Amino acid sequence: MQQSSAAESKPRVVIIGGGFAGIAAALALAGSGARIVILDSNNHHCFQPLLYQVATAALAAPEVAWPIRHVVRRQKNATVLMLTVEGVDTARKVVKTQECEIGYDFLVVATGATHSYFGHDWAKLAPGLKSISDAALIRRRLLLAFERAEVSGDPIERERLLTIVIVGGGPTGVELAGAIAELARRTLPPEFRRADPRKTHIILLEAGPRILASFPERLSDYARNSLERNGVDVRTDIPVDQVFEDRIIAGEMEIPAGVILWAAGVRASPAANWLGVEGDQSGRIAVDGDLTVPGFPDVYVIGDLARLIGPDGTQVPALAASAKQMGKYAGRAIRLRLKGSSPQKPFRYRDYGSLATIGRNSAIVKLGRLELTGFPGWLFWSVVHIYFLVNLRSRIFVAMSWIATYLTSNRGARIITR
Amino acid sequence: MQQSSAAESKPRVVIIGGGFAGIAAALALAGSGARIVILDSNNHHCFQPLLYQVATAALAAPEVAWPIRHVVRRQKNATVLMLTVEGVDTARKVVKTQECEIGYDFLVVATGATHSYFGHDWAKLAPGLKSISDAALIRRRLLLAFERAEVSGDPIERERLLTIVIVGGGPTGVELAGAIAELARRTLPPEFRRADPRKTHIILLEAGPRILASFPERLSDYARNSLERNGVDVRTDIPVDQVFEDRIIAGEMEIPAGVILWAAGVRASPAANWLGVEGDQSGRIAVDGDLTVPGFPDVYVIGDLARLIGPDGTQVPALAASAKQMGKYAGRAIRLRLKGSSPQKPFRYRDYGSLATIGRNSAIVKLGRLELTGFPGWLFWSVVHIYFLVNLRSRIFVAMSWIATYLTSNRGARIITR
Repeated sequence: MQQSSAAESKPRVVIIGGGFAGIAAALALAGSGARIVILDSNNHHCFQPLLYQVATAALAAPEVAWPIRHVVRRQKNATVLMLTVEGVDTARKVVKTQECEIGYDFLVVATGATHSYFGHDWAKLAPGLKSISDAALIRRRLLLAFERAEVSGDPIERERLLTIVIVGGGPTGVELAGAIAELARRTLPPEFRRADPRKTHIILLEAGPRILASFPERLSDYARNSLERNGVDVRTDIPVDQVFEDRIIAGEMEIPAGVILWAAGVRASPAANWLGVEGDQSGRIAVDGDLTVPGFPDVYVIGDLARLIGPDGTQVPALAASAKQMGKYAGRAIRLRLKGSSPQKPFRYRDYGSLATIGRNSAIVKLGRLELTGFPGWLFWSVVHIYFLVNLRSRIFVAMSWIATYLTSNRGARIITR
Repeated sequence: MQQSSAAESKPRVVIIGGGFAGIAAALALAGSGARIVILDSNNHHCFQPLLYQVATAALAAPEVAWPIRHVVRRQKNATVLMLTVEGVDTARKVVKTQECEIGYDFLVVATGATHSYFGHDWAKLAPGLKSISDAALIRRRLLLAFERAEVSGDPIERERLLTIVIVGGGPTGVELAGAIAELARRTLPPEFRRADPRKTHIILLEAGPRILASFPERLSDYARNSLERNGVDVRTDIPVDQVFEDRIIAGEMEIPAGVILWAAGVRASPAANWLGVEGDQSGRIAVDGDLTVPGFPDVYVIGDLARLIGPDGTQVPALAASAKQMGKYAGRAIRLRLKGSSPQKPFRYRDYGSLATIGRNSAIVKLGRLELTGFPGWLFWSVVHIYFLVNLRSRIFVAMSWIATYLTSNRGARIITR
């Protein structure tokens, strides 16, 4: 990299990944005197909690994604480079990309997680939902299934096309199932003449005994009932055996399907290889209490990529909230080290609660001992998500999209693109 | 196609193409007693006059495109099928698609126009702007050029990346040049640290003696001055000789360029082959005054695909307004024939005026003898375009996007997708 000589003397912090963790780390280093370089293979930061609404055509992609350089535009010490990282040389302290090498004094690795198919080659058959591209692909498959059902004259083929299987009963699977039910039963029916979107068979498959297993049993029962009332066929204790282009085999049943979606597993991005350390079985990198990697005191690993057992003995969960907290902690830690101050206490994840939406007027919320369901939960969920959007413009646009969808049941982003 | 026996007896009108012309024809046949079938290879109707704003990241694609079936949702006699037409058998009166054949009593062909490279193979090197996919591709190339300039340490390469050449000084070329100037000079500068987007060299090449040649000379001079004030390098009388991936040769100059865009020529879609008639040199099909094809009294050809000399001896221009008027005329003509009424007078294009925007606070408008420029023209242009959007939701969202962009100079849709 070209450097002016004045900047050359300042320490450089390289952050790989512009997700929740990487952005939080960058923001915590504002005004620190260090030069910050954020590297990402995409130009945008994405608000993952609302990606399922892009996938189900309620929101346009630009409503939940913004250029990383826009998010940090006021931070004059931060440079954003759209580059794909290929490796790290920890001995020479450089990050390697196809175009160039970038030296660092401190490295923050925040490359997150991707889908896991447990060793199977099902990625193209059953796409998962982690990025804007994933959301666009899922939207395309969903909308095309309805278009093809309208064209088809064959009732068996039409029934197959209108069978949508979602694998995995965690928050993403539940949110997708609820939103697809709304799309099929409320949005599309007035616009179809030959196929009946109301007859769409939405199947949510969960290998474990209950959906939303990270929530208390009462809330997960509520979610199941709520989904079933909206016409989702929830099936628990059903592991998937095989996925094909036009059908899925699960629990000894063969289900012909028009769309198969994957929300069953994640694994960390392959950053453990870069550092030459051993990842855990999900590819995550074990970190110390100060979020550095054992043996690499200048390398922080944060977000979904990090594996950390907190002071209370439980594992820090892979959530947007923990990613943000880790990013803030790592940014502060580097700041203190640059000033020569004494270090912070070990990282401690603060659980402010968890929430999942199920569909129109229905969500579950757990805040400490407070539990909300139904309309109050849904309203709380909506307000929290609007609040966490990146800027005023996004808040206004997402809120207006939701109001319009709520009032008209139309979904504003039903474009099939190539 | 499967038909219920009650519907079987009703005459069927097949409309190929869900653009301005096709939609207008369908709407004019509402309540006519005919069955309407609209065929399109895309699921959406696109408001082409604002596509350049999607290409330059001011608007998200769903703000200017809506499912065709949504546009005609209230028209219970209209069925929309997403199918790619492969031919027409006029003897048997069927439209052929890969999936099925569809019989018609009346056929309306409204498949529009595509880019013309005058026989050269430049489509991938210099994309044109006719569809949502085109707009997404152009947006990707523009935003990537700035991203790469920020990464590059080589000043010559950086200068090449920040040279953007637009070929063709018609309304699309002018609108693209003006919007790219805004993007480069107002939106991006606060977000870049190494490259300076203000230094972007935007070149508008026109082979003829002046830009916007369809407007009076005074307005086209105004547009040129306005573009030049915004930093666009307007060069007239410069024909393009050769296009390469990283440079363009025009008027004996070789211009290294990061992005090359094509707004220089259109040709009609290849529908003349379907009917077995001879197209004109742009591929358009000559129609009679009633918009039917000579020798095919049940086949209407409308919109950009039609070539028609009006009663006043001038050729009907290829515009959104003429496409809509032709669609309405053809729909009514079929309606009258179904009722056995006497036919309408020959089609006559009503010129309500023409307008083109140049950039922030600047547009040219010609309405009969009234000519507007500058801020009044720009305000008029904005109001007219909001008015013609398909529904209230789109009007509100586009208006709000414009207000946000006007106030903050941010452009809300700067996402690079694959």
